Amino acid sequence: MKEVGVGIVGFGTVGAGVVEGLLTGAALISRRCGVSVQLRAVADLDITTDRGVSVPAGILGTDALALVAREDIQVVVELIGGTGIAYTVVKQALEAGKSVVTANKKLLAERGAELFALARERGVDLYFGASVGGGIPIIRALRDGLVANDIRAVYGILNGTCNYILTRMAREGSAFDEVLADAQRLGYAEANPSLDIDGFDTAHKISILASLAYGVSVPLNEVTVQGIRGLSLVDVRYADELGYVIKLLAVCRECAGKRLEVRVNPTLVPKTHMLGSVSDVFNAVLVDGSMTGDTLYYGRGAGRAATASAVISDIVSVARHVAAGLPREAEPLPSIEASGYALQKPEDCVSRFYIRLMVREACGMVGRFATILGNHGVSIFAASQHAATEAQCEAGYVPVIILTQPARAGDLQAALQEITEQGIVQSMPLSMCML
Amino acid sequence: MKEVGVGIVGFGTVGAGVVEGLLTGAALISRRCGVSVQLRAVADLDITTDRGVSVPAGILGTDALALVAREDIQVVVELIGGTGIAYTVVKQALEAGKSVVTANKKLLAERGAELFALARERGVDLYFGASVGGGIPIIRALRDGLVANDIRAVYGILNGTCNYILTRMAREGSAFDEVLADAQRLGYAEANPSLDIDGFDTAHKISILASLAYGVSVPLNEVTVQGIRGLSLVDVRYADELGYVIKLLAVCRECAGKRLEVRVNPTLVPKTHMLGSVSDVFNAVLVDGSMTGDTLYYGRGAGRAATASAVISDIVSVARHVAAGLPREAEPLPSIEASGYALQKPEDCVSRFYIRLMVREACGMVGRFATILGNHGVSIFAASQHAATEAQCEAGYVPVIILTQPARAGDLQAALQEITEQGIVQSMPLSMCML
Repeated sequence: MKEVGVGIVGFGTVGAGVVEGLLTGAALISRRCGVSVQLRAVADLDITTDRGVSVPAGILGTDALALVAREDIQVVVELIGGTGIAYTVVKQALEAGKSVVTANKKLLAERGAELFALARERGVDLYFGASVGGGIPIIRALRDGLVANDIRAVYGILNGTCNYILTRMAREGSAFDEVLADAQRLGYAEANPSLDIDGFDTAHKISILASLAYGVSVPLNEVTVQGIRGLSLVDVRYADELGYVIKLLAVCRECAGKRLEVRVNPTLVPKTHMLGSVSDVFNAVLVDGSMTGDTLYYGRGAGRAATASAVISDIVSVARHVAAGLPREAEPLPSIEASGYALQKPEDCVSRFYIRLMVREACGMVGRFATILGNHGVSIFAASQHAATEAQCEAGYVPVIILTQPARAGDLQAALQEITEQGIVQSMPLSMCML
Repeated sequence: MKEVGVGIVGFGTVGAGVVEGLLTGAALISRRCGVSVQLRAVADLDITTDRGVSVPAGILGTDALALVAREDIQVVVELIGGTGIAYTVVKQALEAGKSVVTANKKLLAERGAELFALARERGVDLYFGASVGGGIPIIRALRDGLVANDIRAVYGILNGTCNYILTRMAREGSAFDEVLADAQRLGYAEANPSLDIDGFDTAHKISILASLAYGVSVPLNEVTVQGIRGLSLVDVRYADELGYVIKLLAVCRECAGKRLEVRVNPTLVPKTHMLGSVSDVFNAVLVDGSMTGDTLYYGRGAGRAATASAVISDIVSVARHVAAGLPREAEPLPSIEASGYALQKPEDCVSRFYIRLMVREACGMVGRFATILGNHGVSIFAASQHAATEAQCEAGYVPVIILTQPARAGDLQAALQEITEQGIVQSMPLSMCML
C-alpha cells in the first residue's frame, strides 16, 4: 500500500481532533481508501499545553515552515486560522508543489482567488471541506455529487451561534441580549460576538459556496450582509404566530440576465420547511440543482470532532490523488467580471417581505399602507393587526404586520420611505425577507 | 484532455435522462472534472420509441453485449433493471476489465457480494450512487465524506411512494386504500404496488447502505421487513395528536456485542425531528457518525432527472479514475459471519413502542396493562384514552394508547400476547416502533 506523508500546522482544538482521528482511525481509513496516510509532523508555537492526545515521539515541533519544506510530507494541513502565518504556510506549501487542506474560511474568502490560481499552476490540490458546514460533506456534494447540475440556488443556515440564539429566542421567548449573554457564558458565543451575530462568518461561507456553485470569486465586500444583532422578540413572536421561524439565511442564486444574488439576511422560514426544522447549533444547506431539484445537507457546523471529520475526509481524498498522481481538480476562480456574471444589486433582489409598522390607530391603516405599497409595485399577500405588548400600549403604538408578494427590495424601501414621511407610523417600518 | 468512452445499456426513462444530461452538460462536466466523457454507444432492445432526446447518429444500437465488448468503451452504465440480462451485462463488463455504473438496487442487494468481489479482482470500479436516494449524494457521503467515522447508525426514509401515501393520509385524513388508488392513478405507485408498500424496495436500499456503513453483505432475506399496507388511519390520527408522524423507516445500526440491527418498519417520528419534516415523495437519510454526530441528506429519491444526476456523478468519478489509472476502491464485501458481525434477532431489537389496545371499558385498564407490561420488563412512558371513532363506538370498543420506554421487541410481544389471552381486548393489540 502506498504511503502519503501528512504534516499538520496548528495544534489547537481542531488540530488535536485531526491528530486523534488520524491516529485512532488509521486502520479504518487505509482499509476504506487504499492508501496509508502517515502523520509525520505537527507544528505549533505552543507544544506544551496538554491537548488530550498522545502524539508519538518526534512528531511535535514548533517550526511550521520547516514542516512545509520536509520532503517526506506531501500534504500540508493548515489549522492555524486567520490570514497571517496561515497565508504564508499555505502559499509556501503550494509553491513547493504540496497539496493543502485547510478549514480557514477567512483565508479562502479573502485570498482564495490567488491561492486557487497558485494550486492550479502547480498542479496540486487545495481542499477546504471543513470551512463550510463543519462535518457536513456539503463541499463534496457540490463538487462531485451534483457535478451534472447547473446550480439554481444555494440557501444556508451556516452559523451555529446565530442559530442557537434564534432557536432559544423562539423557544423560550427570551430577548436577544439575554440569550446572547447566556450563549457567551456557555461558550457558544465569543466574548466579541460580532463575527457571528453580525453575519460576517456566514458571509465568508456563502462566498465559498458561491465559488463552488458558480465557479467565480465573490469578493466579501460585495456580499450584502445583515446580521441578527438586536433582533426584536416581538418579530420572533409574530413570525411564530404566522407559522414561521426566523433564521439567519445565506442566499446565493442565479437571477435573470446572468446576475448572481449573494446575501445574508435574517429571514422568515416556514416552520414546515426543512430549513425551518434546523435548530440549535445545527447548520444546513439547501441546494437547488437543475437535475436533482432541492437537496439538503444537515449536521453540526462546528465543534472539534465534526470539523476534524471533514479535515480527515479531505486529507484522504488528497492523499489518494497524491498516491495515484491524479490530475488535480483545483480550478482558478475567475473574477465576477471575467466569468460573465454580474452581482445583483441589493435593491434589485426580489423576495417576499415581512413588514412590521407601528401605528397610533390601526383603523383604516392597512388600506393606506396597501395603496402606497401598490403604487410602488408591491402587492400584499396578508395583513393583520397583532396583539400589542404592554410596552407598545404604553408607548401608544400598536403593530400592523404585512406580508408581501415577491417584490423588488428597492421598491419596498421606497414605499416604506413614503409611509414614514407621511408621519402615520412611529418610525421607519421594520422589514425582513421571507423564504 | 483525456477522453473516456462511455456506453449505456438501457434507454428507458433514466437512460434517456442520462443521455440528455451527458450531451447537454458535456462542457460543464469536462470543465468541472478535467476529463472528456465521451458517450460512444447506447443499447436497448427498443430503439424506435421516441425518448424525447436526440442522439447523434451511430450511437443507438440493440446489442448490449457487443457494446460491452467494444474496446473504446471503458465505462459501462447498466440501466436495464432486474437481475436477468442486467446481471449478465454487469458481469461481462467487469470481467472485461471495465468499470460499471448501475442504479439497480435489486441486482446489488441480491448479487452485490459476488459482483463487488469480481470488481475488486479485476481492479475496476462498481459504482451505484443512484441505487439509494436518487439524486441525493448519500453513497458519496458515506464513502468519502464520513470516511473518518465509525458509523453508529443509519436511518432512512427511502421510498417515495410510501412517503407520499403516508403524507397524504396524515394531511388529508384519507384512508390507506383511497390514497393508494389515487397514487396509482397519478403514477406515484405501480399497478402492483407490493415492492413499494410492503417495504421490499426500502429493504433493498437499507441493505446497500448497511454494506457501505459496515462493509458487510447483508442478505435481503435476513432484513426484518414490515410495510405500510393497510395502515390504519386511526393510528395516523393518534400519532398526530401525540406530536408524531408515521414514516416507513429503515434502520441499520450497530448494537452491543457487534450485532447489526437491519430492519424496515412503520415508525412514529416526532414532528419536530428533521426526519418528521420529510414529506411527499422526498427521501432522507440520517447518519450518526462517531465524529460528526448526526448528519442528514435530503432530496428526491426517484424521477428521471434526479436519478440521472446521480448516475452522471458516478460516471464522472469513474471516468476520472480511468483517466488517471487510479487504484480502484471497490472492496469485496465479506459475509456477515466473516465480518465478525452477527445480525440482531428481531426479538432482541430495542425501541420505544406505540401500542393501541381496543378495550370494552377503559376504566382501570391502564393499570392492568401497565402491570402486565411491567412484568415483562416493559415500562410505560405515557398512556391515554383517545376519542373513539363512530365505528369504534358502534363496535363497542374504545382505544387506549400506550407509549413505552425503550423495550425489547420480544418482551413487548410476550406482554401483548398475555394481554390478549386475558380476553380484555378486542384482538391482539397493534404496536409500532417509535424513533
